[in-house]
Amino acid sequence: MLFLSDNAAPVHPRIWDALRAADAADAPYDGDGLSQRLDAAFSQLFGRECAVLWAATGTAANCLALATLVPPHGAVICHREAHIEVDEGGAPGFYLHGAKLLLADGEGALLTPAAIAAVADPIRDDVHQVQPHAVSITQASEYGRAYRPAELAAIAAECRQRGLALHMDGARFANAAAFLGCTAGEAAGPVDTLAFGCIKNGAMSSEAVLFFDPERAALARYRRKRAGHLQSKGRFLAAQLLAMVEGDLWLANARAANGAAAEIAAGCADRLLHPVEANELFVRLTPAERAALRGAGFAFYDWGPEAARFVTAWNTTPEAAAALARAIAGL
Amino acid sequence: MLFLSDNAAPVHPRIWDALRAADAADAPYDGDGLSQRLDAAFSQLFGRECAVLWAATGTAANCLALATLVPPHGAVICHREAHIEVDEGGAPGFYLHGAKLLLADGEGALLTPAAIAAVADPIRDDVHQVQPHAVSITQASEYGRAYRPAELAAIAAECRQRGLALHMDGARFANAAAFLGCTAGEAAGPVDTLAFGCIKNGAMSSEAVLFFDPERAALARYRRKRAGHLQSKGRFLAAQLLAMVEGDLWLANARAANGAAAEIAAGCADRLLHPVEANELFVRLTPAERAALRGAGFAFYDWGPEAARFVTAWNTTPEAAAALARAIAGL
Amino acid sequence: MLFLSDNAAPVHPRIWDALRAADAADAPYDGDGLSQRLDAAFSQLFGRECAVLWAATGTAANCLALATLVPPHGAVICHREAHIEVDEGGAPGFYLHGAKLLLADGEGALLTPAAIAAVADPIRDDVHQVQPHAVSITQASEYGRAYRPAELAAIAAECRQRGLALHMDGARFANAAAFLGCTAGEAAGPVDTLAFGCIKNGAMSSEAVLFFDPERAALARYRRKRAGHLQSKGRFLAAQLLAMVEGDLWLANARAANGAAAEIAAGCADRLLHPVEANELFVRLTPAERAALRGAGFAFYDWGPEAARFVTAWNTTPEAAAALARAIAGL
Amino acid sequence: MLFLSDNAAPVHPRIWDALRAADAADAPYDGDGLSQRLDAAFSQLFGRECAVLWAATGTAANCLALATLVPPHGAVICHREAHIEVDEGGAPGFYLHGAKLLLADGEGALLTPAAIAAVADPIRDDVHQVQPHAVSITQASEYGRAYRPAELAAIAAECRQRGLALHMDGARFANAAAFLGCTAGEAAGPVDTLAFGCIKNGAMSSEAVLFFDPERAALARYRRKRAGHLQSKGRFLAAQLLAMVEGDLWLANARAANGAAAEIAAGCADRLLHPVEANELFVRLTPAERAALRGAGFAFYDWGPEAARFVTAWNTTPEAAAALARAIAGL
Repeated sequence: MLFLSDNAAPVHPRIWDALRAADAADAPYDGDGLSQRLDAAFSQLFGRECAVLWAATGTAANCLALATLVPPHGAVICHREAHIEVDEGGAPGFYLHGAKLLLADGEGALLTPAAIAAVADPIRDDVHQVQPHAVSITQASEYGRAYRPAELAAIAAECRQRGLALHMDGARFANAAAFLGCTAGEAAGPVDTLAFGCIKNGAMSSEAVLFFDPERAALARYRRKRAGHLQSKGRFLAAQLLAMVEGDLWLANARAANGAAAEIAAGCADRLLHPVEANELFVRLTPAERAALRGAGFAFYDWGPEAARFVTAWNTTPEAAAALARAIAGL
Repeated sequence: MLFLSDNAAPVHPRIWDALRAADAADAPYDGDGLSQRLDAAFSQLFGRECAVLWAATGTAANCLALATLVPPHGAVICHREAHIEVDEGGAPGFYLHGAKLLLADGEGALLTPAAIAAVADPIRDDVHQVQPHAVSITQASEYGRAYRPAELAAIAAECRQRGLALHMDGARFANAAAFLGCTAGEAAGPVDTLAFGCIKNGAMSSEAVLFFDPERAALARYRRKRAGHLQSKGRFLAAQLLAMVEGDLWLANARAANGAAAEIAAGCADRLLHPVEANELFVRLTPAERAALRGAGFAFYDWGPEAARFVTAWNTTPEAAAALARAIAGL
Repeated sequence: MLFLSDNAAPVHPRIWDALRAADAADAPYDGDGLSQRLDAAFSQLFGRECAVLWAATGTAANCLALATLVPPHGAVICHREAHIEVDEGGAPGFYLHGAKLLLADGEGALLTPAAIAAVADPIRDDVHQVQPHAVSITQASEYGRAYRPAELAAIAAECRQRGLALHMDGARFANAAAFLGCTAGEAAGPVDTLAFGCIKNGAMSSEAVLFFDPERAALARYRRKRAGHLQSKGRFLAAQLLAMVEGDLWLANARAANGAAAEIAAGCADRLLHPVEANELFVRLTPAERAALRGAGFAFYDWGPEAARFVTAWNTTPEAAAALARAIAGL
Repeated sequence: MLFLSDNAAPVHPRIWDALRAADAADAPYDGDGLSQRLDAAFSQLFGRECAVLWAATGTAANCLALATLVPPHGAVICHREAHIEVDEGGAPGFYLHGAKLLLADGEGALLTPAAIAAVADPIRDDVHQVQPHAVSITQASEYGRAYRPAELAAIAAECRQRGLALHMDGARFANAAAFLGCTAGEAAGPVDTLAFGCIKNGAMSSEAVLFFDPERAALARYRRKRAGHLQSKGRFLAAQLLAMVEGDLWLANARAANGAAAEIAAGCADRLLHPVEANELFVRLTPAERAALRGAGFAFYDWGPEAARFVTAWNTTPEAAAALARAIAGL
């Protein structure tokens, strides 16, 4: 049973249906009828006007957004363990033409106003030091933690006061929203840009980049093309996004994954390194215990020498979750 | 009937089948079993060892290849009407960190050794002038013309003598190979890198980048990730490529498109601006004639004030081709 | 006698005096008293408020200015033989992060509104084609030709109508102004940025970059530091600029160089490839004639197989000019 | 009395003499006779063949060197307080096209093999994480500490074993060498590239970049031009470097500065935050004490709330040093 990652899970049947339904030739790039519906669909979902671009990866989605917020000589404040810092192969440096990431600390890979201030305050306001222009936060965080709406508001206020834009990496945004039980708009808070993840949530190859300022979207369209991300059969990317958000698929899939994670968590609460607020579990396990679980057919990644990471997905069955919970309990 | 472009045609049923067959979770990125088969499949097709990466667009494919051939302070010699110069939104400047494109002339958007020399010879060999490091040619060319193997050999010899690498933009490589009636290896000639197009030939979202030097492929892997083009469900991109080349689908689709183009060409030989050697036709037509054709239900692009471009695709039916041929003949 | 270039001429005694006078320690970078006087000195000279940065080369000066006018995904329209295209080692591609130069034609390396339109008009307004954001002209041009104020006004009007910014490469701006017999402001016209050349006109290592919009200057300050051009003993660069423009040295030196060029030109009017409006002469000379001149002690560059380029400088003596004029007349 | 920084000190008389002696026109850029002597002069000084380029700032010098060691998708390991990280306005991100700086810890802003390992070891060897390609160390360090030859050998061995190149930022290299009492070659150790500082040591506007691999120098020549750092009157930069190193001026000036620092240090040993091994002192001083010193005519920078930084220079007189020593002792 696979608990390696949600990033390689199968594609949801409703996504398959949407892909097939998009087969007939339409205008290329994002001139097709499906792509043209994106702004409205996401504006409705978030209760706030936005312009939406599709992109084939979360890395591209984050970078296309950030590049509209930060000049090449500027910087982004993010958590030391943020995906853009740790796992995107230096893509922000590429897309932002050498802009820096300034690293903040925070429990659970979550930022706070104080953490942002701790990075920004010591920076002298002169040309010798790289000045921050934006903050990037991850919802849910790299440790599967969800920002509460009040926390988002506080971060946004801190940003506003400092003249910083605010980006949200939402690779697992749906999982956070499902956990919080709030609307998409509440789970995003007053961010300027949002990379709305779908691939980890049952899509094949499409993420949405939301711009709550249409001028930034216009800029990003040029940069998407320039990055080789303007697919000619873009209707297939739009189709995936619409299938996700024009119904409740985004939420249903996230609830399923979260539910499986919660079931597992319930059985090993004393072993958890982080509260489980999405679909990732970081579980204290000795090498011998990990070997035993693998011997029993469970696949997962080590997380340092004394722990393991388990990720559930939209297709994790209750049976599989229960089996893993039992197996850990039985160690 | 659509003759706008092959770039938005439907996906071929065998590609759909391959996509569905790839659904089950596998290792993410390019660690899956399908991606692992690419090198062998293409090495066999080309009769020459190569390492292969998938990429979601031709623009990304070209740029990932070129970035391994040319340093930021260098230049690529290409035709004045090359897609990388005219229609990729400046992507080479982005991927190559500001390297230049040096523009050559040539009938039919084809380069020759003399055209390359005409660009390269006047460049002083000093640091004040940007030095060429590679040549990029397009097979078939932007006007649907195919380089013959002897022409490729002559270009490659010119490059070798000048210390220039040779890249081939093969967005319609299959169409050229089908026209030439030669092997893939012969239609490519001794290039260093090749962007092997599939999307215009019935795929959904995957092109192959071939590196005949494995060190360049290793470098390109880092740059693909950095450009946000390393999709986590990369198995779906690999599946499309394998479906294309492990049988003869790439050739069969190209033959179908070429055949339709040839049928149309046969009916309007006196109007052709360029010999038809692939699946594009550039046809002299007055505004009134174009209006008449559109009135009759044909969709296509104007090509300047006195001509039109028609593109056939894998799914252009003989009936549609015949209808267009008749309609033009009847003007 | 040296007619190779003005770019390696000795430093004028008044510049030496200014350098020595700046020796005492002052605030580093551009915090010193001399640097603080630049804005006022140039604003007065040009009769228009501007913010001024020093830079050690014309290449850096041009690129720092252009980078405030053009985004990475944009383009600059310039003459096919502009220095930024031909002789700056690709610096615009570096400083502008891959933005393109779009090449226009024009007699004497001069642009016209029509030449700009000929480049800009065919560009489709979509993300597939790189959009121009600025025009760059050179005063005096690469062939020593000066734009008249009315020509500058026409170009600026064309730019304004198209939403393009206007930059002036003034490596030999003083020579143009001396020829035109007008004020600095008139010789610049309504440009947005100007690289005001001093090094070819008797300075050692300092050019001025003028920004007629202070926000662009603020941006350029970050980029100058980031490019490694913020010298810690910047007072020595400011001193050179002030010595040039707080008196009439910039004009006196240019007049001397122009006068020498005019004297030579008078003796070989029938051989001139271009009217002499600054301090450069392009003279039709056979290989044998060039050899004879070199045999007589004149140093200069060939300009293709049948011509030569002679450049005078602030220190070209009337005697040297007369000697060259006689030598050419006597061929 | 100024103890703000050595970076704005006057120019040494022998440098002035060398500048004046270089006035006569010579070949432009680095084709002049002085520039041609640099390789030999520095090869002799370091006892090891090297190719040398001049550059106008330490920032440019460091970045031109690093750009030959690290690809755009790579990283440099440096100290968290290294000048390239903290005070160069993001120049490495610009010159290295987005490559990252990975930050190591170490007492006195010094790196050790263990500090390098602590950064490099956790990096997974895959395309998702940015891989280090070089290490950069500063001699003397940002806290005025000197690496001993054995320490340099250990760092170089660590680098070699990991396949990392080694760069040295030698903005105050002369001060370190003077302190160590060893040859230039010993003070550099087996580095691949070295930015040899002169501006803080009595020059006006020239640093040397040493490449112990000539291929890297060839590459850097293109990049220097492209960065706008190839000055046309480059002979004035070469002249400064030769005046520094063809005699013992580099060492004499450093000894003078170090001597003054040592004199001050002797009087306040109990207040020092760092051992004084070059020409910088970090002295524990309360706000009231700092105010008293400033009231007595001493100029210096605060170093956090409870300390101050004093920097001596080649022209700090023994009297000034003694006066400061007495003033601190008398607090």
